[in-house]
Amino acid sequence: MSTVKIESKEVKENGIINEEDDVVTPWEITSSSAKGVDYDKLIVKFGCKKVDTDIVTRIENLTGKPAHPMLKRGLFFAHRDLTSILDRFEQKKPFFLYTGRGASSGSLHLGHLIPFMFTKYLQDAFDVPLIIQMTDDEKFLWKDIKLEESTKMAHENMKDIIACGFDPKKTFMFTNSEYMNPAFYRNVLKIWKVVTNNQARSIFGFTGEDSMGKAAFPAIEAAPCFSDSFPQIFNNKRDIPCLIPCAIDQDPFFRMTRDAAPRLKCHKPALIYSTFLPALQGAQTKMSASDVNSCIYISDTPKQIKNKINKYAFSGGQVTIEEHRKMGGNCDIDTSFQFLKYFLEDDNELEEIRRKYTSGEMLTGELKAIAINVVTKVVMEVQGRRNTINDDTLKEFTTPRKLDFDF
Amino acid sequence: MSTVKIESKEVKENGIINEEDDVVTPWEITSSSAKGVDYDKLIVKFGCKKVDTDIVTRIENLTGKPAHPMLKRGLFFAHRDLTSILDRFEQKKPFFLYTGRGASSGSLHLGHLIPFMFTKYLQDAFDVPLIIQMTDDEKFLWKDIKLEESTKMAHENMKDIIACGFDPKKTFMFTNSEYMNPAFYRNVLKIWKVVTNNQARSIFGFTGEDSMGKAAFPAIEAAPCFSDSFPQIFNNKRDIPCLIPCAIDQDPFFRMTRDAAPRLKCHKPALIYSTFLPALQGAQTKMSASDVNSCIYISDTPKQIKNKINKYAFSGGQVTIEEHRKMGGNCDIDTSFQFLKYFLEDDNELEEIRRKYTSGEMLTGELKAIAINVVTKVVMEVQGRRNTINDDTLKEFTTPRKLDFDF
Repeated sequence: MSTVKIESKEVKENGIINEEDDVVTPWEITSSSAKGVDYDKLIVKFGCKKVDTDIVTRIENLTGKPAHPMLKRGLFFAHRDLTSILDRFEQKKPFFLYTGRGASSGSLHLGHLIPFMFTKYLQDAFDVPLIIQMTDDEKFLWKDIKLEESTKMAHENMKDIIACGFDPKKTFMFTNSEYMNPAFYRNVLKIWKVVTNNQARSIFGFTGEDSMGKAAFPAIEAAPCFSDSFPQIFNNKRDIPCLIPCAIDQDPFFRMTRDAAPRLKCHKPALIYSTFLPALQGAQTKMSASDVNSCIYISDTPKQIKNKINKYAFSGGQVTIEEHRKMGGNCDIDTSFQFLKYFLEDDNELEEIRRKYTSGEMLTGELKAIAINVVTKVVMEVQGRRNTINDDTLKEFTTPRKLDFDF
Repeated sequence: MSTVKIESKEVKENGIINEEDDVVTPWEITSSSAKGVDYDKLIVKFGCKKVDTDIVTRIENLTGKPAHPMLKRGLFFAHRDLTSILDRFEQKKPFFLYTGRGASSGSLHLGHLIPFMFTKYLQDAFDVPLIIQMTDDEKFLWKDIKLEESTKMAHENMKDIIACGFDPKKTFMFTNSEYMNPAFYRNVLKIWKVVTNNQARSIFGFTGEDSMGKAAFPAIEAAPCFSDSFPQIFNNKRDIPCLIPCAIDQDPFFRMTRDAAPRLKCHKPALIYSTFLPALQGAQTKMSASDVNSCIYISDTPKQIKNKINKYAFSGGQVTIEEHRKMGGNCDIDTSFQFLKYFLEDDNELEEIRRKYTSGEMLTGELKAIAINVVTKVVMEVQGRRNTINDDTLKEFTTPRKLDFDF
């Protein structure tokens, strides 16, 4: 992920920057608060809706499956038109899931995988097709890197993503630079036509010094929202609506897409947005591949995970054991506890840990040991699957073909 | 062809508008002079070179064929790097021809066909592959029209172009919206990355109110300059240089491309530019499909051609026969004579007509009768071939395939 300087007045007015100088754009996320980004404020600023307990209960009832911990615990916290998608599901009308990522060098880290782990849950719960876009073109346009390198990175990233457990019968993945075709381009054109340069500048903060490619790119991320970008996958059916699970920094792309959709006579994409997995150093920033010590990679060994959490995981505990026993720890800013919120499945166990740590009964070392165990288990599961994935697996997922659904 | 208002200072400074208020952009061409655009000034402003008699002679010697009348008579008047292409030809190194057009409703007119007639001569003389791009996407982005309509128009236009006599073994044609593919897109990305929004604005005069699509489009017209946009056609050979025969209004696209080419580690495209075929009403404007009475269409009947030239062709003659006999006519502003410059092959005959009309020996009616004969013959030839062209012919030209050349 690269950064762009946000200086134009329009950008501030359009709510990409919130009042406490949280910066949340597709290319930069920082917060001045130890608790990280103020997500409630972001909901108001972006104009999306909170995922409340009614929605969580409804999803459990409709799917007959327990809600994913990240859903119950407010980590997928905001949405647009999610209820319309649930209505369709209730009426047995089709929808599909669409998500994606850029291209990163080396292994993906846990922050990268959050949307995919959650997407895997959604796909299992609703049994729907899934489209995964790899924006190797975006990486190329934003960074000093060759296109061929970016595509190669994306291929390795795709193997990591597949290791979240996706089923090739139900999932189509592609890199933009390898998939681009007339059906896709025709939707890009239709999006391009209905968004002005001023609007794009206001939504994304592009400047005159940015490349033409940056200015053109948003339509490439928007096009997969429209099912006729994938004629083989959807058996030539157009206007099957999509639900996009992703981190909230991608909202500008989909605000633009939702504005454009009626002009294309298509459904607006629905969205469900996640918070950002904190960096080991704390919630002011998210895990970022540009700082290896901020991340747990899915290629990390148990020993590396243990060392990283012990050495870098920001503690909400007190300076001395005596003080900690007396005053207790602060779970809200403790990275190890935040990791448990994402990855520890048992609600009762999580609450017990919260109680003990907050009261001072549990020390930071003990909390870290639990986090190490839980995170190691998650990483080892992904790593185990990852070791079975090769170029043939990738080819299976990336070949345009009809998925195993009736449309 | 659509128009954009050119208001920004940069555009004027960059020489798209010349001093006498000639406006020459890819989307607008007008002149305040009865003689039309001052092409000598345009050469200086755009920074290209004049096609001089040395070049014409060299082409004749190299190809062993007489130069095309439009080349001899300065109608293809300006170039960039044409001599490098001739050097390559001399060294028996490959190059290809690239040209194109937008999409127009109905038949093409003679103005549309000038670059194609000349391209046909170049292809025959040099025996090289030819790529023809139809920018149905450009028409869609610039006009209030559906993409599907624009593509359909382009198909009919392509049949008219084929009727100039092209050989499917040596020619690949495509519409952008139907050809777009990874190889092509990868070059689009590489061009997008090295041109800033400011540069594009300065070259093309785009404003904030223009669509994202207009801002993105120039790279789509630039990409065919690079042979690896067409892996099947060129047998996966990259960096075969191209020569582009086109009207000079397209120069902004190729100035941009020539600036980008070294960053892509590719040859700059070479160009040979035509003047504009005057509208029947005179050289202040070119033939334009948006004014049916300004054009001779290739679907016009002999009677329509006769009537249009008799009724609308701007005359350089005097008001009365007496005055004309005394003062003579002005060939430079006479549309019928200009048509003869483009289409009458015999140099001696043309000079004889000029002499007689200038001296007053030949009357306007007589000149028009000659022009009617010559133009009708050209149109009937194209029309005859056009009647044999159907969707199968089109498919032959548009199927990506290796052309009949060794690379």
